[in-house]
Amino acid sequence: MARRKKIYEGKAKTLYEGPEPGTLVQYFKDDATAFNAQKHATIEGKGVLNNRLSEFFMNGLTALGIPNHFIKRLNMREQLIRQCEIVPLEVIVRNYAAGSMAKRLGLEEGMRLPRPIIEFSYKDDALGDPLVPEEYIIAFGWASQQDLDDIVALALRVNDYLSGVMYGVGIRLVDFKIEIGRVWDGDYMRLIVADEISPDSCRLWDIESGQKLDKDVFRRDLGSLTDAYTEVARRLGVLPTNGPIEDTDTPKIIN
Amino acid sequence: MARRKKIYEGKAKTLYEGPEPGTLVQYFKDDATAFNAQKHATIEGKGVLNNRLSEFFMNGLTALGIPNHFIKRLNMREQLIRQCEIVPLEVIVRNYAAGSMAKRLGLEEGMRLPRPIIEFSYKDDALGDPLVPEEYIIAFGWASQQDLDDIVALALRVNDYLSGVMYGVGIRLVDFKIEIGRVWDGDYMRLIVADEISPDSCRLWDIESGQKLDKDVFRRDLGSLTDAYTEVARRLGVLPTNGPIEDTDTPKIIN
Repeated sequence: MARRKKIYEGKAKTLYEGPEPGTLVQYFKDDATAFNAQKHATIEGKGVLNNRLSEFFMNGLTALGIPNHFIKRLNMREQLIRQCEIVPLEVIVRNYAAGSMAKRLGLEEGMRLPRPIIEFSYKDDALGDPLVPEEYIIAFGWASQQDLDDIVALALRVNDYLSGVMYGVGIRLVDFKIEIGRVWDGDYMRLIVADEISPDSCRLWDIESGQKLDKDVFRRDLGSLTDAYTEVARRLGVLPTNGPIEDTDTPKIIN
Repeated sequence: MARRKKIYEGKAKTLYEGPEPGTLVQYFKDDATAFNAQKHATIEGKGVLNNRLSEFFMNGLTALGIPNHFIKRLNMREQLIRQCEIVPLEVIVRNYAAGSMAKRLGLEEGMRLPRPIIEFSYKDDALGDPLVPEEYIIAFGWASQQDLDDIVALALRVNDYLSGVMYGVGIRLVDFKIEIGRVWDGDYMRLIVADEISPDSCRLWDIESGQKLDKDVFRRDLGSLTDAYTEVARRLGVLPTNGPIEDTDTPKIIN
């Protein structure tokens, strides 16, 4: 395979030009960052696990007819995705109070919320992805009211599905973040789930013990992140080690 | 506990008066029937498994804020439920062609449907629970258009959730049936998921092997129904044997 042109490098993933127009290759790095990249480490194997787990979750969405960017996994660290125009929002769905919400409102972590609550952060690293009211989103044109209504409906469907997946293997889906992209089929614009779904983007607590199985293990120095993610993958029957290994532990960058 | 008055006896469950007004006790029998009760057998332990599994699935709905009749499990075969007025419809959600739909349309079983399809049967044993168009439902007043819209939304949420639960443990949710009840909070009427969610009311196929893990094992003489249901319970970590055993393998009937 020829070397590919890098399109974008984020904190945990890099995007390369795909083999066909309208596609990209998403490469999962081992980098872990937190607190807007003030904390950083390399966690060996994290990229391999998240590539697999995101494949697993996105395939489940596809089976339910919930549109998303995933096309197929290419190898240990890469997947082929549909190119889309990312809506510059982090869409956060919360079932239980935790993280920034618990802090902002002075709530105890783990408190069951009266209903799933959706909030939006404006994607801007320099600003630290600030929480924004819906009014800002409409006023600044990041999304239309209709888009936002569709995004809320999409996010709630993902929550029902993903809560179910986790509940079935004894895990509580405390909250999660998704990103949404726009794709055009001719003149018809559709919103699809993009980015990734993985323990990097979810809070996952063991239902029995409350043990954290997500990126908080890294944020809060609670032990081995790889062990936590491997436990999630193991319960879901997602093995990180089969499939084609014509791999690329080193990204094929040309810059 | 005093003997309780029997309210209703169905093919697989019996309802007794509950300890408080507005509650019922739902007793799970070991009876299995198919083809509108033309085929009948007693499957030892089925009731115990379904009591547990329905508890598990309904608790998951509750955690997502999807309203349902379940209050708590009382013992091996009984659960306390909220009394409701049952809408006389079987609400069937299909993700893949199977059973009566496959037969009616000449489709191969297992064919992925273009999207989840909801259909309704009128609950009437004498008529064999016939499939009915929505027009019939409105015209005969079994449910209003608004109720029906709400029922569809509820059924699709259950499908997203339950598909997720099953997907997480390597099972395909081919289709399922729910029943819906009306409850009143003062003047405000709400629709809730009632009856049961169990392998009696779902088609469940192992994703890898296609093995059936639902009532079709009984309908089609494919082996041990208890083994199939136990496998589902095992994967979900639902153990059929703890909890209070102040039990009732014999129903407390007074008639």
